[in-house]
Amino acid sequence: MLDGAAGDEISSRRNREGFERITFRPRPLVDVSKRTTSTHVFGQEISMPVMLAPTGAGRLAYRYAELAVAKAAGEAGTIYMQSTVTAFPLEEVARVATGPLWYQLYLPHSPKETEEMLNRVSAAGYKALSITIDTPIFGNRERDRHNRLSIPQRITPRLVFEGMTRPAWTAEFIRGNFSPSALRGRPPKNLRLSSTATQQAIIATQWPVTWDDVRRVREWWHGPLLIKGIMRADECEQFLDYGVDGFVVSNHGGRQLDGVPGTIEVLPEVVEAVAGRAQVFLDGGVRRGEDAIKALALGATAVFVGRPYLYGLAAAGQEGVKRVLELLHGDIDRTMALLGLRTLDEIDGSFVRVSAH
Amino acid sequence: MLDGAAGDEISSRRNREGFERITFRPRPLVDVSKRTTSTHVFGQEISMPVMLAPTGAGRLAYRYAELAVAKAAGEAGTIYMQSTVTAFPLEEVARVATGPLWYQLYLPHSPKETEEMLNRVSAAGYKALSITIDTPIFGNRERDRHNRLSIPQRITPRLVFEGMTRPAWTAEFIRGNFSPSALRGRPPKNLRLSSTATQQAIIATQWPVTWDDVRRVREWWHGPLLIKGIMRADECEQFLDYGVDGFVVSNHGGRQLDGVPGTIEVLPEVVEAVAGRAQVFLDGGVRRGEDAIKALALGATAVFVGRPYLYGLAAAGQEGVKRVLELLHGDIDRTMALLGLRTLDEIDGSFVRVSAH
Amino acid sequence: MLDGAAGDEISSRRNREGFERITFRPRPLVDVSKRTTSTHVFGQEISMPVMLAPTGAGRLAYRYAELAVAKAAGEAGTIYMQSTVTAFPLEEVARVATGPLWYQLYLPHSPKETEEMLNRVSAAGYKALSITIDTPIFGNRERDRHNRLSIPQRITPRLVFEGMTRPAWTAEFIRGNFSPSALRGRPPKNLRLSSTATQQAIIATQWPVTWDDVRRVREWWHGPLLIKGIMRADECEQFLDYGVDGFVVSNHGGRQLDGVPGTIEVLPEVVEAVAGRAQVFLDGGVRRGEDAIKALALGATAVFVGRPYLYGLAAAGQEGVKRVLELLHGDIDRTMALLGLRTLDEIDGSFVRVSAH
Amino acid sequence: MLDGAAGDEISSRRNREGFERITFRPRPLVDVSKRTTSTHVFGQEISMPVMLAPTGAGRLAYRYAELAVAKAAGEAGTIYMQSTVTAFPLEEVARVATGPLWYQLYLPHSPKETEEMLNRVSAAGYKALSITIDTPIFGNRERDRHNRLSIPQRITPRLVFEGMTRPAWTAEFIRGNFSPSALRGRPPKNLRLSSTATQQAIIATQWPVTWDDVRRVREWWHGPLLIKGIMRADECEQFLDYGVDGFVVSNHGGRQLDGVPGTIEVLPEVVEAVAGRAQVFLDGGVRRGEDAIKALALGATAVFVGRPYLYGLAAAGQEGVKRVLELLHGDIDRTMALLGLRTLDEIDGSFVRVSAH
Repeated sequence: MLDGAAGDEISSRRNREGFERITFRPRPLVDVSKRTTSTHVFGQEISMPVMLAPTGAGRLAYRYAELAVAKAAGEAGTIYMQSTVTAFPLEEVARVATGPLWYQLYLPHSPKETEEMLNRVSAAGYKALSITIDTPIFGNRERDRHNRLSIPQRITPRLVFEGMTRPAWTAEFIRGNFSPSALRGRPPKNLRLSSTATQQAIIATQWPVTWDDVRRVREWWHGPLLIKGIMRADECEQFLDYGVDGFVVSNHGGRQLDGVPGTIEVLPEVVEAVAGRAQVFLDGGVRRGEDAIKALALGATAVFVGRPYLYGLAAAGQEGVKRVLELLHGDIDRTMALLGLRTLDEIDGSFVRVSAH
Repeated sequence: MLDGAAGDEISSRRNREGFERITFRPRPLVDVSKRTTSTHVFGQEISMPVMLAPTGAGRLAYRYAELAVAKAAGEAGTIYMQSTVTAFPLEEVARVATGPLWYQLYLPHSPKETEEMLNRVSAAGYKALSITIDTPIFGNRERDRHNRLSIPQRITPRLVFEGMTRPAWTAEFIRGNFSPSALRGRPPKNLRLSSTATQQAIIATQWPVTWDDVRRVREWWHGPLLIKGIMRADECEQFLDYGVDGFVVSNHGGRQLDGVPGTIEVLPEVVEAVAGRAQVFLDGGVRRGEDAIKALALGATAVFVGRPYLYGLAAAGQEGVKRVLELLHGDIDRTMALLGLRTLDEIDGSFVRVSAH
Repeated sequence: MLDGAAGDEISSRRNREGFERITFRPRPLVDVSKRTTSTHVFGQEISMPVMLAPTGAGRLAYRYAELAVAKAAGEAGTIYMQSTVTAFPLEEVARVATGPLWYQLYLPHSPKETEEMLNRVSAAGYKALSITIDTPIFGNRERDRHNRLSIPQRITPRLVFEGMTRPAWTAEFIRGNFSPSALRGRPPKNLRLSSTATQQAIIATQWPVTWDDVRRVREWWHGPLLIKGIMRADECEQFLDYGVDGFVVSNHGGRQLDGVPGTIEVLPEVVEAVAGRAQVFLDGGVRRGEDAIKALALGATAVFVGRPYLYGLAAAGQEGVKRVLELLHGDIDRTMALLGLRTLDEIDGSFVRVSAH
Repeated sequence: MLDGAAGDEISSRRNREGFERITFRPRPLVDVSKRTTSTHVFGQEISMPVMLAPTGAGRLAYRYAELAVAKAAGEAGTIYMQSTVTAFPLEEVARVATGPLWYQLYLPHSPKETEEMLNRVSAAGYKALSITIDTPIFGNRERDRHNRLSIPQRITPRLVFEGMTRPAWTAEFIRGNFSPSALRGRPPKNLRLSSTATQQAIIATQWPVTWDDVRRVREWWHGPLLIKGIMRADECEQFLDYGVDGFVVSNHGGRQLDGVPGTIEVLPEVVEAVAGRAQVFLDGGVRRGEDAIKALALGATAVFVGRPYLYGLAAAGQEGVKRVLELLHGDIDRTMALLGLRTLDEIDGSFVRVSAH
């Protein structure tokens, strides 16, 4: 499930291949004995240019899901962007978090609900807000379907029985009311509810994001506002006009529209279009710290990882996530040294070369 | 048999690879909550930009062959282009059809027969006519030969015995008179007559199509006239001069001349040469609805599928074809939503990018 | 042995890949009902643009080696270019041949021997002469070495025993006198003398070809003179100055210098440099008639096949070679029809497109 | 261990692929009967343009390590560049060497130690000195880690016991004093000290090379001075200003920063930047003599081999190295003959063509 993507999984593959086509050009004889991997995102210092992507799959990987992830991110000195699709309410995650949190919003049904939601997010102390624009509908996740990770078609006795342990939650879920407020509590203990099912439920009821929504959210949200899922440079200008502060070049890990390019392929044109008027981030295909450095050389401020920390989460919970982040930090530190970089500010396009596809 | 192509099957492979080299560029924040996959071909509305290609292989896949295909196409709201090479006479197919039909003509021996044929096709209510130009002779289908799908070399007792159940048909077949009029009836029940054999028979006796034929057919046929099998843009102009209404970029599924490019590779140059003076279609390598959208982005009006519905036909007859068409419709609907398209009119080249071969 | 090439066998692979990167662009609506595959090479009509390459491997494939090949070539209406390295003397091959022969010369030690050799070749009725220029030394045929196909290092009792059946031949062979005149007779019956060994022997004693040799041969040989093994266009001019009539673009089937390009990659630049002042041929990688048509579209007059007929020879002797030539003829005839060609004169570069490597 | 590289081993793979993308363009009819593979490096004649790269892995491959390598190199008439990381002291290697030696320096902690070191190297008769610039820290050698080739984390009884046989060495090693002077003697007989461990130890304590170091070494070292590990042409100018005599384009065999290009990809731009003001060498991916010729055609003076001779060393000690060098010599001789080269001075870019990546 953590592995699966949409359709023929071409975009997922291209996310990786894009990185492999970029080579490094190290600068020698720089005194790298003192160097730092830290950087700033919207004024916030983080320990390395890697943040934790929102995902609805946490619960499948580990019982305490987002709670563990938030704590590990804080310990590692970086930011966790929490998803709307979670096993735990956003306030509970915020309470245990040991570092800054961002919030990835799937828009609720009405402007009123949106405003309430933003108030909750803000009150809980989330620093930045991201609107995901690549989920007008749910992607074609064939591997998930093969593995029966989907909303139960029929109400089975087992589902009813398990539902008894959390009657309110189950009732809403079965009624198809997947709004975060209705499903605020934890799901029944033994209900093997797939993240795909939950996410599909949430997205199915998401109000299609419109330019009016962007305007409204921008009005109500006073922190940094990001747009996640941009894959065309020519769409950036309008978002900038609406006052957006950042972009996440993302193809949803190849899990929405199969056939889009790898995100690192699209990054340069977005960076060029944005021209410094917003920060640009990337997710998709980041597996090593070297990949983060490549994205930075092409103009990203930082990257998000998803699958790597989910693997750590599934393997060893909070400690697993922490270990994965340590490995990524080690990669970045080592790569900086070998490239001749003391700070990430020194990186530019001269440190890499991109081969043609 | 349904899988096989000509020679080293390079063209068949390139049909697929051509689609894989095209990536999508989704447009965000379009309100796609109301969208339609329907489009128009020669003024006829169809439910989606996917039509059913002519094939002689229906009988091998399913007993009721074209009858089932025609019914499934009509139920799905799209067009079936019937082949000259069929198990059932064109009138019988037309009688059971629940939607519009087109006819793909292999030219008979003489202008007189051609005229009679066109009269039959017209009288039966077929809406458009297509002349296939890539079968001056039969291709080199090695896999079929390995699987012994060819015209029987000798008249075996079994063939004679089976022939007894349909003596007239068999007599004509054995005499080598493969003209549609001679073979109008159904073949003997147990005769495992391969489509390759039948098609080879028909093609073997096709009068080589000439420009005179095109002129004559254009004179006699009052509906839309298509040329199927175009693979060079520089040949379009003359066809347009002769009053052709549409082109099908096709390499016969890679089953005629091995070594031709993939059809999606050739589509752009044909679209450019035609410059809106005719509708351009494509067949070859379309396996998902995403492929149809890619072809439309490069200028096609619609595409044809062959193998996918034959697989459905072989698996579950009419229901199987219907299911395949539903899947394709679902793909197209989902891809439109994820690309930010409400109608197919909105699609243009900005939604895709083509990587070099 | 018939499969092996030099080093990592990169050039052998590139010979094939070069053809696969060329696609066809068929011209429709040509009346191809009357068509011919015949063509002319130096005024001689041949049944198809495929000739039989010289090879020293015949004896390993089949007892009667060149005798069978020469007869099959004649029956098929095409030309066999015989190698200096053969199991049978050139006069014996000429006596049984049923069609025109060409001769591929490895230069003997002295001008005098060369002149004698040319007199023999001419007297025996060979029509054209080819000088091979890519064998100043023997290539690095690792697969042959692994399979122990090399000159025996030591004189073993078995070699001596077998040698008794043909004492003169063996004596010369063991003495290292590999000149054709010394080894004129047949080798001992049971001596498993590999073609590699024989060829290595001949080449080892070949006088390095110089410009003086070309001048002398041109003076003494009154028929068409070819240069075989050209792989650089910039070397053609000087050969033309010396009165050469034809070039064979060849990398010795990838068996001499590994790492040279595929021959079909080099063909266009040679054709351009020669600019019609000589005929250009190609060998290397031709496996189907389609390949011959591709080479002709890029400017070749005809091609040579090696391995394909050796496989036929190994499988079924003369009949096997004949069958292979029939298949190639069928390919060419079918490809011409499907491309819209009535004669080979009509072919030009517009019928193909070359993808980048 | 001899096989392993850093990270995903992409750079190691690209070293090879770079050579495979280069094809040869042989020049015919050159009289290559008299030819020589010898060349000159800094005025020193060597038997072929292949030298032996420094490596710390010798001890793992063979007990007598550098002693055997130095002797084999001398017998083969070429140069061995000895590493700072060795099983035997530089003086002992120099004493047994039968040919010229170069020295590859990892800089010690202080200028004073550096000066002492240079005095030792000079006194021992090493002809040229190379400073490695791609090891500011140790690379990410995952395969080595998987195989437990790393510095022991804890002092085990076994380590202590084994250490008793060479107490001084062990004491320094355990104290973490890895400087060559401290570890001058041989390590304890049974201590399975991996080259990775030793090299890691040395590098861990190397003073980061600075421009001041280059200036100082240049002042103190009167022989030819090389910079090893250059991978960016734009850095050459400054080195030339500091009086450097040669560059080794090297990515440390792909064992330092994974993701750098293949060295043969970078060679042309370095050659162009240097513009004849220094000699340019290459290591990385050279497996056959053909590769050396390709590098020379692109402007290198000679190349270094590493893994090939280590395999020979592991298989058969000094004889194994000698055999590998004979094979490489044979490759070069044969390739020169087949390309039409009598001397290496005749080679230029016209003999190769580079395909795009």
